Amino acid sequence: MEKSIFYHAGCPVCISAEHEIISLIGAEQVEVVHIGEERTRIAEAENAGVQSVPALLTPNGQVLHLNFGAAIEAVKG
Amino acid sequence: MEKSIFYHAGCPVCISAEHEIISLIGAEQVEVVHIGEERTRIAEAENAGVQSVPALLTPNGQVLHLNFGAAIEAVKG
Repeated sequence: MEKSIFYHAGCPVCISAEHEIISLIGAEQVEVVHIGEERTRIAEAENAGVQSVPALLTPNGQVLHLNFGAAIEAVKG
Repeated sequence: MEKSIFYHAGCPVCISAEHEIISLIGAEQVEVVHIGEERTRIAEAENAGVQSVPALLTPNGQVLHLNFGAAIEAVKG
């Protein structure tokens, strides 16, 4: 199965959600991307439909926004 | 592992999220509860920290609100 991508920005809500997701679906099934650090991937996240972080892009191309840490606009700064 | 519980209220956002979650973690790992129909479980969801649906209560007791379908207050009606 293709991996999911977990986009986050290092916020406490992000870290908590990351732990839950990895616990639920396994670290080997998720690529974790810190868009505050890997800023070149912000556009990729936006194009996928990510509006806030933390968010999980599933292998089906669907975005699950998990709780609310920060709007992507705030990450862009 | 203890199961997660996916609380929803039958809304389109809920159904979409349910498909993704089951695809990600497997139907046997998730109990699906429609709190619009199983109204006796609304209090249980609220006590667990569910503020809106769809939401996933993980085996760790953490709540992941997945996108936004409806506030639990709206489900209570």
